[in-house]
Amino acid sequence: MTKHDIKSKIRTIPDWPKKGVMFRDITTLIKDGDGFRHACDMLYDHYKGKGIDVIAGIESRGFVFGAVLAYKMGKGFVVIRKPGKLPAETVSASYEKEYGPDSVEMHADSIKKGDKVLMVDDLLATGGTMEAACRLVQKVGGKIVGCAFVIELPELRGRNVLGKYEIFKLVDFEGE
Amino acid sequence: MTKHDIKSKIRTIPDWPKKGVMFRDITTLIKDGDGFRHACDMLYDHYKGKGIDVIAGIESRGFVFGAVLAYKMGKGFVVIRKPGKLPAETVSASYEKEYGPDSVEMHADSIKKGDKVLMVDDLLATGGTMEAACRLVQKVGGKIVGCAFVIELPELRGRNVLGKYEIFKLVDFEGE
Repeated sequence: MTKHDIKSKIRTIPDWPKKGVMFRDITTLIKDGDGFRHACDMLYDHYKGKGIDVIAGIESRGFVFGAVLAYKMGKGFVVIRKPGKLPAETVSASYEKEYGPDSVEMHADSIKKGDKVLMVDDLLATGGTMEAACRLVQKVGGKIVGCAFVIELPELRGRNVLGKYEIFKLVDFEGE
Repeated sequence: MTKHDIKSKIRTIPDWPKKGVMFRDITTLIKDGDGFRHACDMLYDHYKGKGIDVIAGIESRGFVFGAVLAYKMGKGFVVIRKPGKLPAETVSASYEKEYGPDSVEMHADSIKKGDKVLMVDDLLATGGTMEAACRLVQKVGGKIVGCAFVIELPELRGRNVLGKYEIFKLVDFEGE
């Protein structure tokens, strides 16, 4: 299966969640057993052998791909969540969204100083959430090995925001 | 690794999210590479060879374990989410929570008639969410093979609510 095949399994929903947005829907990729397996394997192949200690997934579609990568690598999986959802002591990082500030949280004891961390989400758009997530991990002493995505939307220039990190994605969508 | 070892990696947070609740926190299990791997393997071992076509995970901790099971089985993964989060046509099922009604949604085209579906969540408490999730799957013609959990809280009698389904869990917590 090629990246083109992966892309063909991702559905586009026009005008969702609001008019003018072309939403890229990975549910059609992951409900396809072969498509899901190959997408995970391609992400894994890029990062295997890079000495990763921990995988961090961003709520909630990042959990789907991140958990599989953690399992395949035999490493721990750390969840990065929206505020107020984690029960123990957390660290928090805020970022700007279209209509104001938002933030992400992670358990303070989830990553050890010096851990090499792979960050995982489904989609790179403006990069705001991932950039905040990376700050969280660094706040507790983790080192970012890379940021993995299934989809990148290059027009939104998330790469600029994540400039200092390695980025890997399976497919691009540009206004089609 | 035994079920006792799995249990020892789950942290209890007293009085969260509110006074009197002993919250069972699986983040300490999944951040442990061995613990996470073994928990997934134990769930897989119970369901392998049962002709499962699709795995359905309930938002959002159910995504962590469900995605790994789907990957290991080479089958599709379907997400069951809180209302308003899925972009295409959905089916919906409501249930009673402590302070009023709530509901879960799934894409209407995510499961085919006759598909044998394994349902996955992290925790069986009152069983309300899982029971509604099972109704969703049946509404589109899916057949429930079983409901898999990492943790069961037997005192909350979720088994009674899920009486007609096969239930499998790795560990119990009873007021300790």
